[in-house]
Amino acid sequence: MKKYAEMSKEELLSLQKDLNKEYEDACSKGLKLNMARGLPSAKQLDMEADFFDTLHPESDFISEAGIDCRNYGELVGIHEARKLMADMMEISDEEVIVFGNSSLNVMYDTVCRSMILGVCGSTPWCKLDKVKFLCPVPGYDRHFAITEQFGIEMINIPLNDDGPDMDLVEKYVNNDPAVKGIWCVPKYSNPSGVTYSDEVVKRFAALKPAAEDFRIYWDNAYTIHHLYNGKEEKLLEILDECKKAGNPDMVFKFCSTSKVTFPGSGIAALGASKKNLDYVKSIITIQTIGHDKLNQLRHVRYFKNIEGMHAHMRKHAEIIRPKFELVDKVLTMELEGLGIGRWTKPNGGYFVSFNSLNGCAKKIVGMCKEAGVTLTGAGATYPYKKDPDDSNIRIAPTFPPIEELAKALDIFVLCVKLASVNCLLETK
Amino acid sequence: MKKYAEMSKEELLSLQKDLNKEYEDACSKGLKLNMARGLPSAKQLDMEADFFDTLHPESDFISEAGIDCRNYGELVGIHEARKLMADMMEISDEEVIVFGNSSLNVMYDTVCRSMILGVCGSTPWCKLDKVKFLCPVPGYDRHFAITEQFGIEMINIPLNDDGPDMDLVEKYVNNDPAVKGIWCVPKYSNPSGVTYSDEVVKRFAALKPAAEDFRIYWDNAYTIHHLYNGKEEKLLEILDECKKAGNPDMVFKFCSTSKVTFPGSGIAALGASKKNLDYVKSIITIQTIGHDKLNQLRHVRYFKNIEGMHAHMRKHAEIIRPKFELVDKVLTMELEGLGIGRWTKPNGGYFVSFNSLNGCAKKIVGMCKEAGVTLTGAGATYPYKKDPDDSNIRIAPTFPPIEELAKALDIFVLCVKLASVNCLLETK
Repeated sequence: MKKYAEMSKEELLSLQKDLNKEYEDACSKGLKLNMARGLPSAKQLDMEADFFDTLHPESDFISEAGIDCRNYGELVGIHEARKLMADMMEISDEEVIVFGNSSLNVMYDTVCRSMILGVCGSTPWCKLDKVKFLCPVPGYDRHFAITEQFGIEMINIPLNDDGPDMDLVEKYVNNDPAVKGIWCVPKYSNPSGVTYSDEVVKRFAALKPAAEDFRIYWDNAYTIHHLYNGKEEKLLEILDECKKAGNPDMVFKFCSTSKVTFPGSGIAALGASKKNLDYVKSIITIQTIGHDKLNQLRHVRYFKNIEGMHAHMRKHAEIIRPKFELVDKVLTMELEGLGIGRWTKPNGGYFVSFNSLNGCAKKIVGMCKEAGVTLTGAGATYPYKKDPDDSNIRIAPTFPPIEELAKALDIFVLCVKLASVNCLLETK
Repeated sequence: MKKYAEMSKEELLSLQKDLNKEYEDACSKGLKLNMARGLPSAKQLDMEADFFDTLHPESDFISEAGIDCRNYGELVGIHEARKLMADMMEISDEEVIVFGNSSLNVMYDTVCRSMILGVCGSTPWCKLDKVKFLCPVPGYDRHFAITEQFGIEMINIPLNDDGPDMDLVEKYVNNDPAVKGIWCVPKYSNPSGVTYSDEVVKRFAALKPAAEDFRIYWDNAYTIHHLYNGKEEKLLEILDECKKAGNPDMVFKFCSTSKVTFPGSGIAALGASKKNLDYVKSIITIQTIGHDKLNQLRHVRYFKNIEGMHAHMRKHAEIIRPKFELVDKVLTMELEGLGIGRWTKPNGGYFVSFNSLNGCAKKIVGMCKEAGVTLTGAGATYPYKKDPDDSNIRIAPTFPPIEELAKALDIFVLCVKLASVNCLLETK
């Protein structure tokens, strides 16, 4: 297979002609396929049918501690739900507050609180001239949207195969008091599938922040979301590492069951030191009387314990794994050796990260859209939606049924080829 | 019956001796009764057992518009849930966003958004030297706690039998650009049970605020919470009145099913003009992907429509009404004619408001506590917990079973008598 970059102008023109023909055919099919967001498929959700039997008219609704879960109260969540989420987060139940249905909402509120009221008594960020967050890239667009909404300056940090560039992280965090946070998806990272190495986690824990109110925003969204392909990855537990390094208050951990039970109807949790949680409690006791304890009870009665969750995620993996295998198979078959794209082969999470030739990503996504395949917007994986190389594309293969996924991938590789040829011809 | 104030010192001392004896007896019983918060009783919650059959393993989970409620999306709520809440709020479904489990949380976030991002493009309140809210008193302690947390100055406005003192409201709102809001519980008001008159609502709608970002925070928590004692009260719909008066954007309406289905597991909603809702949507789309649509579906399938809700609230009233009747009966029997207390006889809502002799409320609540009866803290119904007269006590009779309520009321009237005698003796 000849690399596109090594082709002559004539070869490229001839290829372009063929690909254009193929693309026109594809467009004429009127497809409507979606690989934009990390949604579970209907098949995954169907699996949870028994969930809806956990509470029924004859149930008692009493928690282990004797709380009537149908009434007000229990700001931090019922104990058994804290325990379940604590096990998922690999920390103790005393270090957990169970919230509502969305960890994104918990993250948003955590940043919002800091803006308006400060962090454990620090100056509210809205009173400061400049607040900065570090953003490992490519990363999760919704993280960046939060910090952008609050006018927080975002600084790109390259995400390597073992985690963020820690030399750069240390340089910023340890020297610039305006740096108040870093967004991390430390396991099966969104979108690149990277899990931070033990060394990276230890370097995180050993940071010496210039700002007392610096926190690591550790969004462990995919902590138990293995593909179960025999290569399950382990992530060192950050809160414990922070304690050992003398930085017990430096991290906020976030987690949810959105991709375990139901997106929008799961339970979310915050994990942190007693000092941090006491502060958070002192604020949120004004915001709400408590979260949905009946839904907490549903989750606890459905899973029983963390082993129940793991067993459940194995079943999810049976549905998801073939989709990831298909992505890799099609990309390998169609693109390997052409020098027009690299992609990740994650062992968990919800995404494949694809890097095209520089300057091609927007074109590829645009062409896909025209042919009826919706991808995450090019640039979305970078702060301010600005991918400096215009190269990264996030592929979310979980939602479509596998036959649709196959069709969408065919369009995708076709668009990658055609856009690459077009790009190369521009410079010939 | 002789008024206490007309008794001689000797009479009071003799009475004090008897009451002290009674009080010691009461304390020795080791009671543990709670009339502190407006909680539904277990009996009310038991009634909702069928709610837990609305979704079951064989259900489809598809909304009328074909949305799979088990997956992400629908930021503003599924249409049929918006319709249900719109009917509850007496506005159109286009004017409603359905949120999560807590209208308090929606109110908090609405104020928080204004603090940090402004209202529809206005200067964020955190950038202003001074922000003020008007607070009809006595009022809802959790409202006041929100504005206190954000450092917003609160100004007491007397709440009359037909609503807030509108001369004073107009004076502040129409002249002081620092006045950005007013907290209202316009129907079966917490705690005094007042419903604002048509004239008061019209005067609200006709305000000419000095601040463009002034809003009325209209917490219609008890809109369908009648006692069904034959005296159901009607409240003029404020959003419509505001439109008619040329002020369509001046009001945020809040509502929830916390005291219709389950506190903590209900659904909450915000009602406002398109302009206001568009602004709110533009912010919350960063905060969350969506609220719990399965719970929205549960509510819709349980009630079917607003008539279903009304029928349901009649059943609640059967449980609640005898408790309110008992409160009035005991207070009348024990205190009428003594000149040591006045109380409200509401036709809906969750509270009775009691006014003792000035300077006695804290003492009464303290004495009750010592005898095992927990009441809402004295002062809680005022901003900064400062009741200038130390006179108002909120009685929440809904939670205890009626036999316990009777015991608690016996203690209460005893403490009112004893504290009043003590107060009067101090001045003799």
